[in-house]
Amino acid sequence: MLRTHTCGELRPEHKDQEVVLCGWVHRRRDHGKLTFIDIRDRYGVTQVVFVPSVAKPAHELAQKLGPEFVVRIKGTVNVRPEKNVNKDLATGGIELLAKELEILNDSKVPVFEIDGDVDVTEELRLTYRYLDIRRDKMRESLLLRHKLANTVRSFLNAEGFCEVETPVLTKSTPEGARDFLVPSRLNQGQFYALPQSPQLFKQLLMVSGMDRYYQIVKCFRDEDLRADRQPEFTQIDMEMSFVDEEDVFSLTERMFQKVLKETKGIDLPVPFPRMTHAEAKAKYNSDKPDIRKNKEDKNEFAFLWVTDFPLFKWSEEEKRWDSEHHPFTSVHPEDVAKLEGKDLSNIRSRAYDLVLNGNEIGSGSIRIHRRDVQKRIFDIIGLGAEEIEARFGFLLRAFEYGAPPHAGVAYGLDRLVALLSGLDSIRDTIAFPKTQRGSCLLADAPSVVNEKQMRELGLLAVTKK
Amino acid sequence: MLRTHTCGELRPEHKDQEVVLCGWVHRRRDHGKLTFIDIRDRYGVTQVVFVPSVAKPAHELAQKLGPEFVVRIKGTVNVRPEKNVNKDLATGGIELLAKELEILNDSKVPVFEIDGDVDVTEELRLTYRYLDIRRDKMRESLLLRHKLANTVRSFLNAEGFCEVETPVLTKSTPEGARDFLVPSRLNQGQFYALPQSPQLFKQLLMVSGMDRYYQIVKCFRDEDLRADRQPEFTQIDMEMSFVDEEDVFSLTERMFQKVLKETKGIDLPVPFPRMTHAEAKAKYNSDKPDIRKNKEDKNEFAFLWVTDFPLFKWSEEEKRWDSEHHPFTSVHPEDVAKLEGKDLSNIRSRAYDLVLNGNEIGSGSIRIHRRDVQKRIFDIIGLGAEEIEARFGFLLRAFEYGAPPHAGVAYGLDRLVALLSGLDSIRDTIAFPKTQRGSCLLADAPSVVNEKQMRELGLLAVTKK
Repeated sequence: MLRTHTCGELRPEHKDQEVVLCGWVHRRRDHGKLTFIDIRDRYGVTQVVFVPSVAKPAHELAQKLGPEFVVRIKGTVNVRPEKNVNKDLATGGIELLAKELEILNDSKVPVFEIDGDVDVTEELRLTYRYLDIRRDKMRESLLLRHKLANTVRSFLNAEGFCEVETPVLTKSTPEGARDFLVPSRLNQGQFYALPQSPQLFKQLLMVSGMDRYYQIVKCFRDEDLRADRQPEFTQIDMEMSFVDEEDVFSLTERMFQKVLKETKGIDLPVPFPRMTHAEAKAKYNSDKPDIRKNKEDKNEFAFLWVTDFPLFKWSEEEKRWDSEHHPFTSVHPEDVAKLEGKDLSNIRSRAYDLVLNGNEIGSGSIRIHRRDVQKRIFDIIGLGAEEIEARFGFLLRAFEYGAPPHAGVAYGLDRLVALLSGLDSIRDTIAFPKTQRGSCLLADAPSVVNEKQMRELGLLAVTKK
Repeated sequence: MLRTHTCGELRPEHKDQEVVLCGWVHRRRDHGKLTFIDIRDRYGVTQVVFVPSVAKPAHELAQKLGPEFVVRIKGTVNVRPEKNVNKDLATGGIELLAKELEILNDSKVPVFEIDGDVDVTEELRLTYRYLDIRRDKMRESLLLRHKLANTVRSFLNAEGFCEVETPVLTKSTPEGARDFLVPSRLNQGQFYALPQSPQLFKQLLMVSGMDRYYQIVKCFRDEDLRADRQPEFTQIDMEMSFVDEEDVFSLTERMFQKVLKETKGIDLPVPFPRMTHAEAKAKYNSDKPDIRKNKEDKNEFAFLWVTDFPLFKWSEEEKRWDSEHHPFTSVHPEDVAKLEGKDLSNIRSRAYDLVLNGNEIGSGSIRIHRRDVQKRIFDIIGLGAEEIEARFGFLLRAFEYGAPPHAGVAYGLDRLVALLSGLDSIRDTIAFPKTQRGSCLLADAPSVVNEKQMRELGLLAVTKK
């Protein structure tokens, strides 16, 4: 064992104990013959003092320490006199009197300061992400993300949900964006697609009788990246059988109550207010109204359900009706008859969004579970028989074998963490994000591959002029 | 709300309560005027009786019910007389006297029986996976997988580990198998690779000070699929700073103690026995010995650490030394001097495998954390300066900025579930697996894509003759 305590752990009750700390040199100060080192790890900072009369070799070696050197220090815990207590530090009541020092690794001078909130370009932060994550802001963001995911999991587990992994190498799903494609070597000329969401698989799990499914899952969209999108992002994805809107809303509200309590200590009032899409457009000219009373208050989290979205939108480009959400969304029961009319613009769906402080953080619907209804929707949005069979044949077939009524929703984890942390960019919630050009500056991806790899996949790259 | 109870829930104490059940028609029997339906959901089976004198319309409608129809039944709970109690069923002490019946969806006759363990070809099972998952074996396997993952997560969370998501769209890692490639549209001619493991990123997280990382994560290998491999598989991946072998072993042993207790009710003795690689080869002629006493006992789980693997192996094909595990593995401290010799075959590493009943279920090592040592290993395995820079430049650079000593391990979740469930194939632990040709029979992936998609990616497919 290399250490006995972490750098955030020691308190006056450890007085006179001999302990071993490991960590990074955070700050260093010399006062006459004394050398003070603040040593840092994920858990906190501890002051270490090197005194020549106590441990000459350690004190001498300490003169070589630069910022971010990795050290192992054996020493005894001194309680600081009242006037020297550092109230800004959880370990401020003690200091470690060093007996032995081992330098586990040295460090070049970091390209930016770890300490404090010095402004650094994002390009530098992403290139040296391993230094950036040592800073408070990034570490706290990743820890909050972890806590949020845990809270969601333990809540859903207690509610009887089962996490099921769905495929990453799969078939194209029709979510409106481009798919990332993966050429198949064993089936040349064919491609897998990375999932834009597990939509079809989670519906198939309902047909499978799994009843209450969730997954915290990576999804992929090959978009021309707008300001704050990522080609890979994470969803809290769920689906339930034998439920209606009230069940989905109530479950969600209790889930976010628990999340806000555990991550922010906030008691969130429920139920969340609701507004139809028509009301939201009329009153706020937006389908994701920000209903906060005080937009300056960092601890105001105003959730809102927006319901009754239109089922279809007219595509002027393609001269046809298209689904507003996706084609698996149920029709509002009062509007079923309108499906036979010509103007489909005022047909309401059973789709709902969850909005938080003016951001759409989740979207879902009561699904279609009958083959005939699903087929009718595909017809309306202009899919031909061949295309239906190629893309959705397996879903329609599944609906012939006892598909239960079901509904679901998916919440965007990256955006949620950003909103709860008060961060402007979802990139600050992701350990190793991509730039707007879809590049990982740290690992230098994407990159060119060798000819052998291309040949094995049966591919030629055509360079554009 | 469509139901008030699940089909596994009702007991004699619910006597005379009016309840609503939803589920699938599992079995049907007619006795004179009475119709009996067993209704099934994820949680169990409940017997429902339709009596014409009690509810004529429901009894009439019940005549239309075929296997796997989806129904909603309102009724009252009858306690069965002692002689009619079905002791094989958790709900066998009661039956539901139906008052109302609603058919939520009908079903074609299933292509194979849901009830019982009737033998069905795997091709049919995978094509109709949504029927297969309704069967006890698959449902129990997915639920065990969920429980195992939860147990691991709650254990590691309590030990201070932080789950961090690493990228799926990344750069090639050198794990010995082929990478799946993803063409980049925004950077034409360049490719992402799907990770064979998060190896480099988890080491970078240690350099980032994250200290105790884990992730239950999808990994990808484009192999010529052997009997029981999958192109995408799931690892319980971890990494720790400031630890040695004893820490990794002790943590793992406590983790599997908890897993065996929670999933199988078994008290697993620890510590696990250990054997060096040399001993294992000498005594068992295997690097993954099966040390079970009784190979017939389905509840014997014999864990074994195999340690001190060779650092290098000679590649006759390439006429050079290659890493036995991967090039980030530390040298055994007693063998460091041998690195300067010619015969590298007897240099031991600090790599370890965890073996369960003769199956390698995990693999890990104490990592190299010094730039000079890492560079030396790359040199020995014949990587040129340019290749080192292109593939691992970012790791070597990270090692210059205060990399702590660290170690890690990864366990194969699919195989673990199979071994704990007594299943022969890891495919039975995965909701939607691929065949040996890498195909998803359910969704028909991979498949051809349209020309527009290829053009956008700047790709041409070259069909082999």
